[in-house]
Amino acid sequence: MKAVVTVMLKEGVLDPQGKAIGHALNNLGFPQVGEVRAGKVIELDLAENDPVAARAAAEAMAQKLLANTVIESFKVEIA
Amino acid sequence: MKAVVTVMLKEGVLDPQGKAIGHALNNLGFPQVGEVRAGKVIELDLAENDPVAARAAAEAMAQKLLANTVIESFKVEIA
Repeated sequence: MKAVVTVMLKEGVLDPQGKAIGHALNNLGFPQVGEVRAGKVIELDLAENDPVAARAAAEAMAQKLLANTVIESFKVEIA
Repeated sequence: MKAVVTVMLKEGVLDPQGKAIGHALNNLGFPQVGEVRAGKVIELDLAENDPVAARAAAEAMAQKLLANTVIESFKVEIA
């Protein structure tokens, strides 16, 4: 199965990369852009046939390695 | 409206970051992890009320700045 883990900085945590992207877009002729947040997405191929087990494994991986849960939140999608 | 742009390396482009994550997960006790691909996700707040216009703007931004279309593909979701 495929698992997609999306990792974003938590609300309230300063995101300088997002800020830089927002300014660059404004300067490139996109004045309609307001707040921008940048994050990571990790696609995992799992040798797992049970979606429940796949989700549990992906969540354990996110907790352990993929996200820094002090400042980042994550979301797991199973496809 | 909110637009979420997901940028991934194209199929066939070497992804050393994904490889490193895969090896790290294998070593951390997740032998079920096969191929891993790493990408970026950018959440944009747009001052736009029309979903069609918002999608067109986000695609233009991805083409112009957010993705390197030589080696990366992107996907836009409007929420």
